[in-house]
Amino acid sequence: MEGLILIAPLAGIISLAFAAFFANSVLRENTGNKRMQEIASAIQEGAIAYLNRQYRTIAVVSIILAFLILILFDNGLKIAAVFLAGAISSAAAGYIGMNVSVRANIRTAHAASTGLGKALSVAFRGGAVTGLTVVGLALLGTSGFYILYGDVNLVIGFGFGASLISLFARVGGGIFTKAADVGADLVGKIEAGIPEDDPRNPAVIADNVGDNVGDCAGMGADLFETYVVTSLAAMLLGTLVIDTYKSAVLYPLMLGSAAIFASIISIFLVKLRKEGNIMRVLYKGVAGSAIICLIAFYFITYALMEIRFYYAALTGVIIMVLMAIITEYYTSTKYRPVKNIASSSESGTATNIISGLSIGFESTLLPTIVIIVGTLVSYFVVGGAADPGIGLYGIAIAAVAMLSTTGMIVALDSYGPITDNAGGIVQMAKLPAEVRKITDELDAVGNTTKAVTKGYAIGSAALGALALFADYRSKVNLKEQTLNLDDPVVLAGLLLGALLPFIFSSVTMSAVGKAAFEIVNEVRRQFREIPGIMKGTAKPEYGRCVDIVTKAALREMAVPGFLAIIMPLLVGFILGPKALAGLLIGLIIVGFMIALVMNNSGGAWDNAKKLIEDGEHGGKGSEAHKAAIIGDTVGDPFKDTAGPALNALIKVVNMVAILFSSLIMSKSLF
Amino acid sequence: MEGLILIAPLAGIISLAFAAFFANSVLRENTGNKRMQEIASAIQEGAIAYLNRQYRTIAVVSIILAFLILILFDNGLKIAAVFLAGAISSAAAGYIGMNVSVRANIRTAHAASTGLGKALSVAFRGGAVTGLTVVGLALLGTSGFYILYGDVNLVIGFGFGASLISLFARVGGGIFTKAADVGADLVGKIEAGIPEDDPRNPAVIADNVGDNVGDCAGMGADLFETYVVTSLAAMLLGTLVIDTYKSAVLYPLMLGSAAIFASIISIFLVKLRKEGNIMRVLYKGVAGSAIICLIAFYFITYALMEIRFYYAALTGVIIMVLMAIITEYYTSTKYRPVKNIASSSESGTATNIISGLSIGFESTLLPTIVIIVGTLVSYFVVGGAADPGIGLYGIAIAAVAMLSTTGMIVALDSYGPITDNAGGIVQMAKLPAEVRKITDELDAVGNTTKAVTKGYAIGSAALGALALFADYRSKVNLKEQTLNLDDPVVLAGLLLGALLPFIFSSVTMSAVGKAAFEIVNEVRRQFREIPGIMKGTAKPEYGRCVDIVTKAALREMAVPGFLAIIMPLLVGFILGPKALAGLLIGLIIVGFMIALVMNNSGGAWDNAKKLIEDGEHGGKGSEAHKAAIIGDTVGDPFKDTAGPALNALIKVVNMVAILFSSLIMSKSLF
Repeated sequence: MEGLILIAPLAGIISLAFAAFFANSVLRENTGNKRMQEIASAIQEGAIAYLNRQYRTIAVVSIILAFLILILFDNGLKIAAVFLAGAISSAAAGYIGMNVSVRANIRTAHAASTGLGKALSVAFRGGAVTGLTVVGLALLGTSGFYILYGDVNLVIGFGFGASLISLFARVGGGIFTKAADVGADLVGKIEAGIPEDDPRNPAVIADNVGDNVGDCAGMGADLFETYVVTSLAAMLLGTLVIDTYKSAVLYPLMLGSAAIFASIISIFLVKLRKEGNIMRVLYKGVAGSAIICLIAFYFITYALMEIRFYYAALTGVIIMVLMAIITEYYTSTKYRPVKNIASSSESGTATNIISGLSIGFESTLLPTIVIIVGTLVSYFVVGGAADPGIGLYGIAIAAVAMLSTTGMIVALDSYGPITDNAGGIVQMAKLPAEVRKITDELDAVGNTTKAVTKGYAIGSAALGALALFADYRSKVNLKEQTLNLDDPVVLAGLLLGALLPFIFSSVTMSAVGKAAFEIVNEVRRQFREIPGIMKGTAKPEYGRCVDIVTKAALREMAVPGFLAIIMPLLVGFILGPKALAGLLIGLIIVGFMIALVMNNSGGAWDNAKKLIEDGEHGGKGSEAHKAAIIGDTVGDPFKDTAGPALNALIKVVNMVAILFSSLIMSKSLF
Repeated sequence: MEGLILIAPLAGIISLAFAAFFANSVLRENTGNKRMQEIASAIQEGAIAYLNRQYRTIAVVSIILAFLILILFDNGLKIAAVFLAGAISSAAAGYIGMNVSVRANIRTAHAASTGLGKALSVAFRGGAVTGLTVVGLALLGTSGFYILYGDVNLVIGFGFGASLISLFARVGGGIFTKAADVGADLVGKIEAGIPEDDPRNPAVIADNVGDNVGDCAGMGADLFETYVVTSLAAMLLGTLVIDTYKSAVLYPLMLGSAAIFASIISIFLVKLRKEGNIMRVLYKGVAGSAIICLIAFYFITYALMEIRFYYAALTGVIIMVLMAIITEYYTSTKYRPVKNIASSSESGTATNIISGLSIGFESTLLPTIVIIVGTLVSYFVVGGAADPGIGLYGIAIAAVAMLSTTGMIVALDSYGPITDNAGGIVQMAKLPAEVRKITDELDAVGNTTKAVTKGYAIGSAALGALALFADYRSKVNLKEQTLNLDDPVVLAGLLLGALLPFIFSSVTMSAVGKAAFEIVNEVRRQFREIPGIMKGTAKPEYGRCVDIVTKAALREMAVPGFLAIIMPLLVGFILGPKALAGLLIGLIIVGFMIALVMNNSGGAWDNAKKLIEDGEHGGKGSEAHKAAIIGDTVGDPFKDTAGPALNALIKVVNMVAILFSSLIMSKSLF
């Protein structure tokens, strides 16, 4: 049995090797003409410059935290080391992924001139690099440090490091991407009347950089974290039942290893025959990976555990599929929600906004039911009624199983900014209209995959966080005490936890507003002071816009980042571990729902606009279209800043609580 | 001691007598010229017609529920009778209040031609009728049935009856008022370009009817319910500690009686000297009533209880004051939030919406902190650390004390639609501009009082609901069992409870959209088919609009009303009493926060528009103004439909849970 555990780091290394292989195959592609290369390198430089500065800022925070850990904890050196390793691994995954992404965009643009199939292949393989890097590093780090330290409790720091990076990547990246996007749109499309991706818009490069920074690096860090902390949560809960089930800690790692092989095989499945349906091909990849996992999980469970744990894993996979279907229902142009918003745009902007919010609110229903039924099933199916410890472990296994397609999901998500960028490059380099048509086709799919992967990320964050909560619960040893709902201290914690997502969203949304305002002023200044821009005779100063939004994003991510780390500590040390337990649950529940509202209404507004642009309700230029553009702009910070940042918030607060639980137990005032 | 209890129904009767006195003094006023009378009677007829139909619908529901109670419960006859009495009292309070309100409007309009002081006095006394009727009937009913039955448990049905009416009045009235308002604005102001309250707009009477139906009858029913259920909650918790404190059940009734006398005295304080500040005069009334209460409470507590309960009561009054100050901060034109929204309107509609939502989210912070600190203080100050039962009773006493100014608050709130209508009548009857200036001055204050009273209603609903939860907890006798946060059944309940406000808001918001759409079509039809309307030669068919919005409101209130009653029963009977406990807490917490977001962002958008109309950021007709109008329209269903309906939802669900608790205990599946 002992030897089996080596499979996990090995699977991680194999994943990284395939990432390198795909990266190499992408880089071998042709980079097109000089104009394209110029644009692509501007995007590249901006993205790398941003990431470098973001990481430099986070490095300072990380070193301070590592130092605190070093002096505050027993085994401080080990925990500080693993914490830094987690942070560095997450940063590396983001860095590698984005480096490939900003190189795959131009190659996809060039491949688009040779046909759809080739372009899809380049873009998707580019995305796959990020996907395999994320899961590879996550599994390698988690299992490697577990083998090294021999105690899961000492590896928690790895998860905290990952959480920290994820939080800043989501918040900073989210502010960057939407400030640039909104800023570019407000002056470009609305004031100056020039189309999207027009090279005369000084903010156009910043906008393209933002796509990579937000969707590629941000989502990568987010799912890296979810993967790590969910695996750790399951392993920790496994240690509590290890007397009955000897493989309880090993089991989640073996599920993760199988998932990696499934992802690698499925990536090869994504190939477009002539005139095929792109979405179907991509879904085929995900479905393939899920089916392979389900088969492998059966045998793994059979060998290591009892078969009832397979049902918990199966539940996790079903949750994943349902979350994807529900998100697609709420954000696709094909169904009632988006159609309703589009038709309500006819009576004006106010009704567009009201109906979008109303759809967002409604969209909390089904995912919540799925999570409720999923947790109840995975709890009771493994025997939670007789032994709550086993039941909680069952929930954690469902969460781990839900993550089995992470590699593919990250690949799909990173595919989004690559095709988006490719379209931008084609437009700016003035390539023929047929080429733009191909990148548009790729990009339209990218919008759907982006929304669907967000639904997945929210669902897995919620389930993972519930498993983390169970760990916190056992760590602070509240088993003997009750966490009663009518205890005013627990209630105070619940209220504070429920409050966090509102405050956090308020801060991030207004940060986007402020940063976008700075971009608007800069673009207006350039139009005023460089008169040749609009005629196309002078080149705008793209770098200035990238620089402004970089600074703004880094400045604005400080408060929410600080809030996420300090709040659980304050509540824990002042109101005590019971209140902190309440805070965690309040945060998970409300954070989950607000994230759903933001993700789904944002996605629905976006596609309602697309539906109108495709000719419904008066088409482009109609009053309904104007209303829909405003709805889309409101939805941007919802779905790309505040919503995704909540995923990170939920997990980082839980990690802080777990990591500091022993200190809180001994030092809290109550 | 026994004889003291007779003070409570006596105070109720005195309150009703003063209501009759003020009603009489208002009705003696002059009703102006024939044109004014015509308009006022159209509003009157519409309002009464709506209320009659609304009550007829609710009567059917009530009779069915009474029948169910009759057959399902021991003591079914007593409970069914008290339930119907609660429903009838609440309906009567709404009916009486609105009847006076729709008569006070024209008299205020006429009084405005003789001066500001006189007009204020008529409008405020009109509001005071509703205020005194509400508290009078509430105290009379609660104490009367307690004396009659001799057991608080049998009086719970009175609260359920009140809750039911409140729910439908809030939902139906909220949909009516905003569908008419939004519908009238969309076609009138935006399409046809005619000003507010223009008699050429066929929806103008429906809009004026809506003010009464929503703010007067709706708020009256809401606070009637809060008053009744909070008193009952305190009395029920009192029965649990009556061995230690003999007057624990009597005490809340005595506090309520004192509050009535304080309200009556303070109403006489509201008198404007020449050129005084209206807001200051109104606040003087509220402050006077609070101060008299605080003094009286001290002696009552000294005589009946121990002085530490006075501190709980004092906490309640402080919570009330702080909630009012915070709401004013977020919704007044004088402070940062509204100023921010107004200035962000300069960069367009999207930024106006984003900043309004961001302010709404932010506005959850301080009220939540106030509620947390308030509950902790009132719990621990009475000795909750040693005896949780006493602690919970302390929270209930704080909630009762918070309600001590209800009479004044309802008066202030009903003042709003009276002055709003008076302005409309002055405009439509083409009275001189000076008169309109006076009604505008009165009305501007009405907008602030409306927002502030909503903050009060939300805060008191939350605190009252927490006391109700404690009753539920003791009724289902879960004391021995634990309501652990990590029990998946409790968690499922929490998630379902948190879900309810989102779904409920989604349903009510889209109901407004649908009903407004019908109004828009009707107004367009009238403009098209009756060509003389715009020239002023033909009279629009006002009645048709009133009729359409009446039908729509009644139709659309069915689903949310049904949802509120069926959800707690489904969860209770299927998932069991633990899950229902989770549902109640999830609902209270999330409902409270969403209601705050809706109320405050709605109020802030409204006043941001006013700020621009007063000349800032380009003033009327500027691009910023257009953006602000859209923000205000989005905010309308927030602050006047979905937000207020959540107050009712929170309480009715708690009442259903308490009323059915014994059945749920014996019959639930889990």
